[in-house]
Amino acid sequence: MSRCSADGGLSNAAGEGVLRVAAGRLPRQASRNRYLERVVPMSSQPLRIVVIGGSAAGPKAAAKARRMDEFADITLIQREPDLSMASCGFPYYVGGTFDDRNLLICTPAGIVRDPNFYGKAKAIKALVETEAVRIDRKAHAVTYEHLPTGEQQTIAYDRLVIATGASPVCPNAPGFELEGVMTLHSMADADALRAVRDERKAAKAIVVGGGLIGFEVCEALRLAGIDTTVVEKTDQILPFLDRELAKLVENHVRANGPDIIVNNGVAEFLGDAEGKLTGVKLDNGTELPCQVAVIAVGVRPNIGLAVAAGIEIGEQGGILVNEHMQTSDPDIYAVGDCVECKSLITGHQVRAPYGDIANLQGRVAGQNVIHPGSARFPGVTQTGICKIFDFTVGITGLSEHRARALGLDDIETATISGLDIPVFMKGKLLVSKLIAERGSGRIIGYQCIGPGDVSKRVATVAMAIRGQLTVDDLVNADLPYAPPYSLALDHVIVNAQVLENKLAGRMQGISVRDVKLRVDHEADCFILDTRSPVEFEETRLGIGETLIPLGALRERLGELPQDKDKEIILYCKISLRGYEGAAILQAHGWRNVKVMEGGIMAWPYPKEK
Amino acid sequence: MSRCSADGGLSNAAGEGVLRVAAGRLPRQASRNRYLERVVPMSSQPLRIVVIGGSAAGPKAAAKARRMDEFADITLIQREPDLSMASCGFPYYVGGTFDDRNLLICTPAGIVRDPNFYGKAKAIKALVETEAVRIDRKAHAVTYEHLPTGEQQTIAYDRLVIATGASPVCPNAPGFELEGVMTLHSMADADALRAVRDERKAAKAIVVGGGLIGFEVCEALRLAGIDTTVVEKTDQILPFLDRELAKLVENHVRANGPDIIVNNGVAEFLGDAEGKLTGVKLDNGTELPCQVAVIAVGVRPNIGLAVAAGIEIGEQGGILVNEHMQTSDPDIYAVGDCVECKSLITGHQVRAPYGDIANLQGRVAGQNVIHPGSARFPGVTQTGICKIFDFTVGITGLSEHRARALGLDDIETATISGLDIPVFMKGKLLVSKLIAERGSGRIIGYQCIGPGDVSKRVATVAMAIRGQLTVDDLVNADLPYAPPYSLALDHVIVNAQVLENKLAGRMQGISVRDVKLRVDHEADCFILDTRSPVEFEETRLGIGETLIPLGALRERLGELPQDKDKEIILYCKISLRGYEGAAILQAHGWRNVKVMEGGIMAWPYPKEK
Repeated sequence: MSRCSADGGLSNAAGEGVLRVAAGRLPRQASRNRYLERVVPMSSQPLRIVVIGGSAAGPKAAAKARRMDEFADITLIQREPDLSMASCGFPYYVGGTFDDRNLLICTPAGIVRDPNFYGKAKAIKALVETEAVRIDRKAHAVTYEHLPTGEQQTIAYDRLVIATGASPVCPNAPGFELEGVMTLHSMADADALRAVRDERKAAKAIVVGGGLIGFEVCEALRLAGIDTTVVEKTDQILPFLDRELAKLVENHVRANGPDIIVNNGVAEFLGDAEGKLTGVKLDNGTELPCQVAVIAVGVRPNIGLAVAAGIEIGEQGGILVNEHMQTSDPDIYAVGDCVECKSLITGHQVRAPYGDIANLQGRVAGQNVIHPGSARFPGVTQTGICKIFDFTVGITGLSEHRARALGLDDIETATISGLDIPVFMKGKLLVSKLIAERGSGRIIGYQCIGPGDVSKRVATVAMAIRGQLTVDDLVNADLPYAPPYSLALDHVIVNAQVLENKLAGRMQGISVRDVKLRVDHEADCFILDTRSPVEFEETRLGIGETLIPLGALRERLGELPQDKDKEIILYCKISLRGYEGAAILQAHGWRNVKVMEGGIMAWPYPKEK
Repeated sequence: MSRCSADGGLSNAAGEGVLRVAAGRLPRQASRNRYLERVVPMSSQPLRIVVIGGSAAGPKAAAKARRMDEFADITLIQREPDLSMASCGFPYYVGGTFDDRNLLICTPAGIVRDPNFYGKAKAIKALVETEAVRIDRKAHAVTYEHLPTGEQQTIAYDRLVIATGASPVCPNAPGFELEGVMTLHSMADADALRAVRDERKAAKAIVVGGGLIGFEVCEALRLAGIDTTVVEKTDQILPFLDRELAKLVENHVRANGPDIIVNNGVAEFLGDAEGKLTGVKLDNGTELPCQVAVIAVGVRPNIGLAVAAGIEIGEQGGILVNEHMQTSDPDIYAVGDCVECKSLITGHQVRAPYGDIANLQGRVAGQNVIHPGSARFPGVTQTGICKIFDFTVGITGLSEHRARALGLDDIETATISGLDIPVFMKGKLLVSKLIAERGSGRIIGYQCIGPGDVSKRVATVAMAIRGQLTVDDLVNADLPYAPPYSLALDHVIVNAQVLENKLAGRMQGISVRDVKLRVDHEADCFILDTRSPVEFEETRLGIGETLIPLGALRERLGELPQDKDKEIILYCKISLRGYEGAAILQAHGWRNVKVMEGGIMAWPYPKEK
């Protein structure tokens, strides 16, 4: 997979033939234990470890290296004034979920992770407001500059970890320098945006970019009482989701106040004579007044230092590493947002700029700089989650459109709606889509959204994907069941059962999107709502449907089209009764019967009532 | 594994050489699809399916059979007046979480699942208040009795499903017939216990049995305002948990009001002249006054009908089935609480009387009675969960003591404490124990308790066990991370990392229980608390420990025992700093250094402050 050296870096270890047992190792009898570390040749001099980057992956690598070797010299170089920030918490600080800024940079025991803490608790020399400006691979040295003074120094390393992170991508629009145009990437950004809230500096805000971070920022601004609009250049928000699910999230956002504009980028940031933002002009000419615009169109790996040092870069634009997080230079490791890694689903290289992945990789590199080759990071399933008002939006693996874009066409999908826990426990809605390879049944993707407990279902399927499990395995999963936590058949299991039914040819599904297209084009199909008259009076789609409650269907078959090849589309609230109805019709000879997947609860378009 | 016939029952199909495509099957091109059902020979007469038992597994089997074959004759025989009850919801009805009894027996769309519903919506003939009294395997017939009239009838079957459930085990104590001695197994039980609440019939109650159901009942009674005591005959509540975790739950229950008495069974139920319960007398002679006693000491499979018919019973006392849920008679299937099934961890036969498993098995049998051999239920990982006041208690796989009792001795465990989500998001505590085989690293068990989100972590590990994943796989799991849902390194991942550290010999752990034993026996060990002085003032164990904050440890090594073989036990709040401290000591030559796993948060014994 990787074009990097895979020799574990041993060739560069300055070994003098001294065998030393790894620090912290205890004697143990068991011989069958494959976890026991090998005794590796090490220098009798302390190993010199330098880590560039102090946000997430870097500090984790440094701390792990310390735990592996009490006597190594470990230096952490950080450009910003803060260390080890919980940057994924920024939106919640900005939105007022909590007020104490220190909570973003302190340990669970409440100690701020400053250079003093790193020195005392971890014996790590942390240099803040200090930027690494050059890596001299031949000399095994890093030159760094103390930013407040401009003073430069050089430090030698035996092993180096690059954790330079990523930077926000900025739209190519004039006016970007105006006061009020911001990002939410650093602690300074978080402070600035929090001040917007605390000082009531803005009445209107624009978020540029309809991705995960964009909507976290959107919620934070809305909670700060700011009238917010999200502007997305492409034709869909949350591009990691399939379109029909993204549309449901869009509805939820609008219901909470913020507006969303798609298919429209920011052409220009507009300002006043004092250089303050007054609005944005979109590609289509519309002008929207605002005092704040937050750019959230993604991040780009910070690879400048690595490129200048001649370290290999991958096709996804991140530093290339092998599964030991080792770059093309065996003494240099790289971790976090600046690298690319392997997708465990496709085997392709991908970028996964998430805080959890950074921590996992940091730990692996921190172990390997002490014992090269002893730890591996096999790759990612690309799991992501975010809270958007009362919805949670989660994904693991591939969406359908992503899978198809990658040429994976022999796949099957199943979309369902349902509660997370029983009605009597006040269950909340989940809408999910499970995707599997048709031939093998292997699960390759799962999306789940809604006010219900999304997180558990995404974690469950993420683990199933990690284990290369199939629809068969999920269909009979033994998951924790009690009414406060699940239905008797968990939402994930029901989703797998529906997918199994489709794979077995027991059910033919049709997406809400395709039904909408049929309706819009006045296609010749018969649409059947199988709910009760009471439900029909409460809410209905109004797309030319006929109401025949499931319980009456067998005796009212005569009301159906007598052309047995005519397309019949059934649904109910969640389409379970729709599926039962479809089975009845098929048994009675109708040959083109489809179930609208997810039912009314998955319908994101306008309804009659 | 199973001693049952595995010929899929085809030998008994009344096939006349007619090939019929399964009802509901659609044409499909894909040839590689292993999910497509085989075309099976079937009679041209409607298949006669009889299902005995209408609570959970039975109705699921009947409904699935209907969806597989629109033309089968399906009869459901149910002894109770209600059908398809959400019996796991009984405690929440009794405790007043909701008041509408119908919510326990209605569909998500709000329709009560009565015989009329089964007739109309599913074309299933449901006979309630009707008991199956005899299976005549030779005649392929079941004799049943309508209980209110005593009238008996016989019905013929092509395939039969036995879903007779289980019955509460009753303690062998006099006075069991007194008014006020109850169980919580049927709708009638739920109604009676709810009436105790509504009519304020009791001031004091005893729950007999300290298992999962016992504590659900205990909480319900407490919420009903009743002074409740749980009496457990063995020396530990919640026997599926390891002792030190069970002890933490015990503390939590007591903190919420109820008392717990262990090592003491009920010797006698005491009553007054009117036959009403007035108290219980325990094995040790103690008398406890009460007006209600609820028996919750487990269930026993209802196998009488099967035994009388000569169907094979397994060594665990349940009906023996193969993975198609087929009994020793190939035309008879059995599902739910009356069967035993395979543990996917040990390969042994086990009983798993849970509502979710009943539903999974019912679906498999419902498919197989129509297309024999087409569906399989591979087995269970024995996942369970329950809510006990503000704690959730969950397990999947084996506990340590269960594993050792089964002879699995080459195992390693790791216990940790930690928050489910960040402090700034108001994270709640979890205490967990992960267990793996030492040689292979395969995960074989996980227990998780606390006020935090236990359910997600148990589901995650349940899926890992299903996938036969190892500690390696969990260490780098790609789980959904955002601050509302997880720490950057999820609790499950940290648990796996600690277990990896132990397997690699980087850390030697000691349980809180063993530390307590050391202290009680005044063992010669040095106990080191590595927290800050502020934390030490707030709370401390008071077991002879010395306080040296982690940040000062390197400069205060001189205060430690200079005998490098002396046992040193470190801990902190959760034992992360304890682990870091242990690494420092080991590097400086101490050879017998242990970390108290889970730290103070996992300490279930009295503390100094």
